[in-house]
Amino acid sequence: MIEPFAAPQIRPPSSAAQAQARERCDALAKPTGALGRLEDLAIWLAGCQGECPPRQLSKVRAVVFAGDHGVSRYGVSAYPREVTAAMVRAFLSGGAGVAVMARQHGAHLRVLDIGVDSDLSELPDDVRRDVRRFKIRRSSGAIHLDDALTPDETHAAIAAGIAIAEEEIASGADLLIGGDMGIGNTTPAAALIAAGLGVPAAEVTGRGTGIDDPALAHKTNLIETALHRAGNRVIDPIDALTALGSADIAAGVGFLLGAARGGVPVLLDGIVSVAAALVADQISPGVVAWCAAGHRSTEPAQSLALDKLGLEPLLDLGLRLGEGSGAMAAVPLVRSAALLLGEMALLSDLAP
Amino acid sequence: MIEPFAAPQIRPPSSAAQAQARERCDALAKPTGALGRLEDLAIWLAGCQGECPPRQLSKVRAVVFAGDHGVSRYGVSAYPREVTAAMVRAFLSGGAGVAVMARQHGAHLRVLDIGVDSDLSELPDDVRRDVRRFKIRRSSGAIHLDDALTPDETHAAIAAGIAIAEEEIASGADLLIGGDMGIGNTTPAAALIAAGLGVPAAEVTGRGTGIDDPALAHKTNLIETALHRAGNRVIDPIDALTALGSADIAAGVGFLLGAARGGVPVLLDGIVSVAAALVADQISPGVVAWCAAGHRSTEPAQSLALDKLGLEPLLDLGLRLGEGSGAMAAVPLVRSAALLLGEMALLSDLAP
Repeated sequence: MIEPFAAPQIRPPSSAAQAQARERCDALAKPTGALGRLEDLAIWLAGCQGECPPRQLSKVRAVVFAGDHGVSRYGVSAYPREVTAAMVRAFLSGGAGVAVMARQHGAHLRVLDIGVDSDLSELPDDVRRDVRRFKIRRSSGAIHLDDALTPDETHAAIAAGIAIAEEEIASGADLLIGGDMGIGNTTPAAALIAAGLGVPAAEVTGRGTGIDDPALAHKTNLIETALHRAGNRVIDPIDALTALGSADIAAGVGFLLGAARGGVPVLLDGIVSVAAALVADQISPGVVAWCAAGHRSTEPAQSLALDKLGLEPLLDLGLRLGEGSGAMAAVPLVRSAALLLGEMALLSDLAP
Repeated sequence: MIEPFAAPQIRPPSSAAQAQARERCDALAKPTGALGRLEDLAIWLAGCQGECPPRQLSKVRAVVFAGDHGVSRYGVSAYPREVTAAMVRAFLSGGAGVAVMARQHGAHLRVLDIGVDSDLSELPDDVRRDVRRFKIRRSSGAIHLDDALTPDETHAAIAAGIAIAEEEIASGADLLIGGDMGIGNTTPAAALIAAGLGVPAAEVTGRGTGIDDPALAHKTNLIETALHRAGNRVIDPIDALTALGSADIAAGVGFLLGAARGGVPVLLDGIVSVAAALVADQISPGVVAWCAAGHRSTEPAQSLALDKLGLEPLLDLGLRLGEGSGAMAAVPLVRSAALLLGEMALLSDLAP
């Protein structure tokens, strides 16, 4: 099943541009290394663009993948599943957290219904059509009882994500963000990370939207049951998505594959985004080289997966909103990195 | 000596506006607490402005206090003191790191020669006059051998800082940043923090611009000698500035006093800025309530002083450039906090 997505189409970022950027960092009017992580970020960006100094990031484009999860009927979230569809409306009206920050940063934001358990019939026809263009199904399966998706749905969702990334790249994106909205989404994301890392449910399960201790214990058991049910199928990343994932997460995986194939850098968000990166990098090794981590969320699985991927997040502000908001909050830092490398004076300019 | 600056003129931020902001945070379309530190920041800002939701930050104004330090002739820095004057020119031409980010964020930036060991005669007359308007002296004293300033100079520098803040506030500043530029400046800053916290030199001394182990040991000894020389005078914060500080740091202290008296919030930068906050809050308790910490620098003394002040930095990116750059990098987060509180939908709006 893996072949169509495993084609070795991921080229690495340009090591020549990275080397140039590293040299330029050391030539800037500052002590060596004084810009800390912003230097790493500038070097990464130069590599992704194949250019030093990197071009400024004028077209940041974010996509929020919305979907419901069968597990949200089983006490894993502090909120009912109806909130997912309500939040799709909030994205469209600009009142969601990530929408506020996207306006602030001049970033384009798009929300897509990949697996929401609603037909969103209250939306105007044209909006509804756009939002549902890539819809796979209404809610994914409850992973402790059943597969999240059929194999065909998994492939369709990944293909949708690839197509979405291609559309964003065709629109000129120079930095991509994939966010996720869906009550219950930290459960499949944590399960996928447990599967990918080979760690038990207790190490990956977090409080999501803010569940209490008994609900946390219940959620841990549910993830453990799901992992047990999936068994050896978790070895294959696409089978793992089918068994433990969801339509929105599978689309997020495809989005990262499409971004890396298209050679456009991505800023990762929280647990769902990082779970998608883990799976995408298993499908096509090399995806992670096109990713930087926007923030550290409060979910333990996110930190575990970031470690595994070798990514250090830019922000650590205790955010746990999802929606791509942690990545969006970090956009100005990526822009700063590019601008500093391009616009700072050189030490050699300082001589009186 | 302390009276003119100790007048109880610091009112606290509005607790009523803070309470309103806290309530509004919980009413936003998100799980309780899901915006993490951005919620604290929004509440702080609402308190400073006495308004909920807080007004957007359209006039961020930064001032860099430039000055030389006697200790820079004694092997405490990886760079020669001539770099200070050269960097003043880089600020003016827009090539300094903080200048690049100030342009990015639409922030106003001003550099002032408070104690540079140069007459900057190569500058055009009008620029030179503006930059030197608050000049106290050419270089401060080498603190292991002599006082940094005379008592009169200390008072003049603090008064200059207050006047500078007043000018910035009169220009409409809704968020202030005080940066510092001066080869050797981490030495007096670390000494002031050691004095303020009552800890030995070994706990506060860092690598500044990037000195090696022998230079670090030498710098530690030099700070220890300075502390010993100052003796009991460090108990009084203004005497401590005279003995261990510098003209630029004393102006930075005055700047914070002026900001807090004027009721305008401040984003602190690295070790020099935080040392100034520590001293300012000793002079007029309550200053710190008007401060948020922009970033954690690599200087150990900065973290110690932030702990003492009860401030948790927004960024932790290994920056050690100074200039106000770490605070400037954090400006978009403060703006995000204000925007999120003002523009996010409410949970009560979500009902279909």
